[in-house]
Amino acid sequence: MNVIILGCGRLGAQLAQMLDKQKHAVTIIDRNSDSFNRLGPDFAGAMILGVGIDEDVLRHAGIEQADAFIAATNGDNTNAMAAEIARMVFHVPKVIARLYDPVREETFRAFGTFDTVCPTVLSADRITEMLKNGKR
Amino acid sequence: MNVIILGCGRLGAQLAQMLDKQKHAVTIIDRNSDSFNRLGPDFAGAMILGVGIDEDVLRHAGIEQADAFIAATNGDNTNAMAAEIARMVFHVPKVIARLYDPVREETFRAFGTFDTVCPTVLSADRITEMLKNGKR
Repeated sequence: MNVIILGCGRLGAQLAQMLDKQKHAVTIIDRNSDSFNRLGPDFAGAMILGVGIDEDVLRHAGIEQADAFIAATNGDNTNAMAAEIARMVFHVPKVIARLYDPVREETFRAFGTFDTVCPTVLSADRITEMLKNGKR
Repeated sequence: MNVIILGCGRLGAQLAQMLDKQKHAVTIIDRNSDSFNRLGPDFAGAMILGVGIDEDVLRHAGIEQADAFIAATNGDNTNAMAAEIARMVFHVPKVIARLYDPVREETFRAFGTFDTVCPTVLSADRITEMLKNGKR
């Protein structure tokens, strides 16, 4: 799969490394070149410096041939906007945005343009599960 | 269950509301009183203003009678330190800390003093699952 990841923070870098190891073609975009240090020396994918809601940057990253686009910057607004562009302008088949805000996540999920992942909801679910199971 | 939650951000507030609805006795601590607005008007638990690594604040929140302690501030260091105090000083049976940094989470999990939840790992797992399942 051709996968484009926006944002080389902890989540973006972790996904990029995982998918790269699985032999997917990974391109990762960040507006700060220091972020690419998170990828380590073994990363074989492409690194693009730029802002992910800029269509020229996305084109340069190869979005027209992408099978999947993952918006994983630390900003919910940026992620939602970039995911919207990936789906509506570039028709990327699979688009997933990380949204911290559970309210915003529910809104965008209901809207259905792209898929969403909310770390807050995932963490709350996991913690209530742990409490129920009596796990310390 | 007597549950103490440290940090009334998105995760803390969501957990507090969920557990309160399930009729658990919830006490939530935050150093910023504005954060308590996230709980909404129906929250029946206690709100304590203070810093969660202060043993007097924890005592005031009733940690000596707590069945569970959840450290959910936005700071990994604060969460780890508060969880450590809850387990080692106050012997709370169930202690869970949210740690954003996967490396730190693995270290503390291996150490085994308290349980950990890493939103980054949970999100990465969910996203790779979505990519595999071909979900858009």
